[in-house]
Amino acid sequence: MKASRKRGFFIGTIKTMTNVEISSLALQPVDLIIDARWVATVDANQSLLAFYSVVIHQHVIVDVLPTTDAHARYSAGSVVALGEHVLIPGLINLHTHTPMTLMRGIADDLPLMVWLNAHIWPAERAIVDEAYVRDASTLACAEMLSGGTTCFSDMYFYPQATAAAVVNTGMRASLGLPVLEFPTNYAKDADDYLQKGFDAHDSWRGNALISSMIAPHAPYTVSNQTFEKVRVYAEQLNLNIHTHLHETREEITQSETQYGVRPMQRLLDLGLLGPNLIAAHGVHLLEHEIDLLAEHSCSIVHCPGSNLKLASGIAPVAALLKARVNVGLGTDGAASNNRLDMFAEMRLAALLAKGVCEDPLAITAHHALQMATINAAKALGLEEKIGSIEVGKQADLTAVKLSDFNIAPCYDPISHLIYACGRENVTHTWVAGELRYSHGIFANIEPIELKEIIQTWQPKLKQYKH
Amino acid sequence: MKASRKRGFFIGTIKTMTNVEISSLALQPVDLIIDARWVATVDANQSLLAFYSVVIHQHVIVDVLPTTDAHARYSAGSVVALGEHVLIPGLINLHTHTPMTLMRGIADDLPLMVWLNAHIWPAERAIVDEAYVRDASTLACAEMLSGGTTCFSDMYFYPQATAAAVVNTGMRASLGLPVLEFPTNYAKDADDYLQKGFDAHDSWRGNALISSMIAPHAPYTVSNQTFEKVRVYAEQLNLNIHTHLHETREEITQSETQYGVRPMQRLLDLGLLGPNLIAAHGVHLLEHEIDLLAEHSCSIVHCPGSNLKLASGIAPVAALLKARVNVGLGTDGAASNNRLDMFAEMRLAALLAKGVCEDPLAITAHHALQMATINAAKALGLEEKIGSIEVGKQADLTAVKLSDFNIAPCYDPISHLIYACGRENVTHTWVAGELRYSHGIFANIEPIELKEIIQTWQPKLKQYKH
Repeated sequence: MKASRKRGFFIGTIKTMTNVEISSLALQPVDLIIDARWVATVDANQSLLAFYSVVIHQHVIVDVLPTTDAHARYSAGSVVALGEHVLIPGLINLHTHTPMTLMRGIADDLPLMVWLNAHIWPAERAIVDEAYVRDASTLACAEMLSGGTTCFSDMYFYPQATAAAVVNTGMRASLGLPVLEFPTNYAKDADDYLQKGFDAHDSWRGNALISSMIAPHAPYTVSNQTFEKVRVYAEQLNLNIHTHLHETREEITQSETQYGVRPMQRLLDLGLLGPNLIAAHGVHLLEHEIDLLAEHSCSIVHCPGSNLKLASGIAPVAALLKARVNVGLGTDGAASNNRLDMFAEMRLAALLAKGVCEDPLAITAHHALQMATINAAKALGLEEKIGSIEVGKQADLTAVKLSDFNIAPCYDPISHLIYACGRENVTHTWVAGELRYSHGIFANIEPIELKEIIQTWQPKLKQYKH
Repeated sequence: MKASRKRGFFIGTIKTMTNVEISSLALQPVDLIIDARWVATVDANQSLLAFYSVVIHQHVIVDVLPTTDAHARYSAGSVVALGEHVLIPGLINLHTHTPMTLMRGIADDLPLMVWLNAHIWPAERAIVDEAYVRDASTLACAEMLSGGTTCFSDMYFYPQATAAAVVNTGMRASLGLPVLEFPTNYAKDADDYLQKGFDAHDSWRGNALISSMIAPHAPYTVSNQTFEKVRVYAEQLNLNIHTHLHETREEITQSETQYGVRPMQRLLDLGLLGPNLIAAHGVHLLEHEIDLLAEHSCSIVHCPGSNLKLASGIAPVAALLKARVNVGLGTDGAASNNRLDMFAEMRLAALLAKGVCEDPLAITAHHALQMATINAAKALGLEEKIGSIEVGKQADLTAVKLSDFNIAPCYDPISHLIYACGRENVTHTWVAGELRYSHGIFANIEPIELKEIIQTWQPKLKQYKH
């Protein structure tokens, strides 16, 4: 604290440089300098830098250097001084269904099939349309931005409506183009889903913040024929494939009955296993299946909160990491979590692995942070762009204040982040260098808008409540 | 929301009645009326009351009735209107070591024995004295009050210093009188511990908010002879016994080697199992040990966060509940959690049991809330006094706002409380009818005091950090 005060910082406030300062010939002009007590880069060396600055120009991180040097070398349009904070890469929620926010808590403490058949699916059939998805995704984006999440990987109907929410709120997203066999309000059959998905994909081409994945829902809802089309299209369009895989014991038994093999073997036979496959859950995995995931460089999304809540089981994450499978973290939808809170998932992932393996090093604080940032970026094929604080990457950044009395004292910022902090300690969230959230205020979302969304949809959904 | 506005409530503010109102002859004067959108009583019927008021006079709940009736029957010195909140019994942290707050995060991601031998014990030997304990307990009380916890059950050296913090901050506590064989700064041998404990116990006799337990640390640190003394004293003084039990596999193996029996069998042989035994952890339990706990009406404190973090394992809570063992919840100390956060423990307890048992009903939201309130009160022998919102009980109450955008919408206040809310949603905490915390402000703690505590002790402790 003392050192930062000496250098004349104003903790937690934005200082605009004077014209004289900006015009100084010796200094290189940049858009933004963030001076941080600590910077957790999540680079290959797991660097934790003290009294460092991140320099941002035209959306990109152009330098990471000691704060004293930063102000001798650059003059910035704005400076944010974070005297009691750690600056981390923006968190990436690798598996969610954003439009389910409005179904948060609609049916808790129920077996999965009752949850789906008696509550979620009837509600979706009756309520879900483009307007619903845009509104519910806006609420989800607000929740995620305020909790330090800058990017998410989604799977739901009407992805173009989620895209509209993403654009409005200024987040980054990889949006699944959903594919199912059965008809919904959104599409009538697999080909219709694919066609609607590609129309959406075409519509956001050129948008720097949105990318697409093909999202066949799960092996139990998608036929072999459709999976083959998905594989071909994904190759042709160079897209990732995002699917649910081995979430429950039931889906495995059902596959054995229907196809004579476990779902992962079926995907292998269909040529779906590969570096572009993002498989959500992976709760029930045999040893040779973990090896298969590693051999084919697939990514797994660990969703500990949802897997526990729906009583699906506990994924063997330590074994996956040991086999060098790339593992990211996801919240799943708000109807089965019930928070889109990556801090909760990081903490739970680290604690759960330790307890299950009876090994305190099974997932360390550093591992958990990597899973929520660089590992997720790798899964999305965006590791050159996001997931760590390194020169040349997009400035997707989250500031977390480490000094509040109810988490004090702080001895190690990384372990503090995972074991003591919560999303309530997030103070700033930037996406591509733009400040999207700070201290309860959004750049592009009005609180009244969120209230209206809830007031519009909650009465309609209420009848499907448990 | 509309209904509450119609009745002219001011949401979240305190309205002082005019003298005219108070002097109205038809109305019975009371100290405080809390008007709540919901009251979760945690009584035997699990009642959830909508638009109800809790009426408080001289520290005690004197009525629970519809808000419209409350204001027709009583006139209050003050009225608190909670238009978007659920009022719950104050949470009870049934196992903690409050003075470890200042060691929060000092040594994370380490095996238990390295954690203890290389970090915690050396730090305790060098640093812990009466002033340390008073300061660290003050920080812990602030953290707990702000997170909705009104009462805790503690075990640490210098309990009289923790008592001073409890008195200053206005909490309720059951303080363990610690007993060990080995010498510390606090006492030189078992008899010295006992003597010092009873001196402390005598000093807070008559204090309505503090009760005592004898706290033999654990079967691996206390001899048979001392356990026998503990049993006799506990009978004579009518005190509970609080100990660690079956937390790790190692302590069980060690007991088998040293005593030829598992620790619980040893306690049974020594006559320690009984309704006054509060056993923390109970991670590793055989079937017949669960039956023993039930037969002898012992209480178990489930500490899921700490058990996972220290890689001790996962307690068989669903089996304990099925056997009708009384189970409360504890955070354990901040050095192994690292939050004294009962919301985190309630959520984790519910999620973990579902996932481990692959049964979504293993621990429901209601169970989790009971464990953190009435079950803990039963364990402490205080079920006539606290643990539920019922007429005649002390007004230990917590208000939780359910409407913030990042947890909205709310369909079921109880499941919302457990699965969506965090301690950051707590707005008011009352102990015995006195408002101790509200919206970031404590009745009896200055923020500067907490800062000074951290600035005093953190530099001294830093050298023991991992």
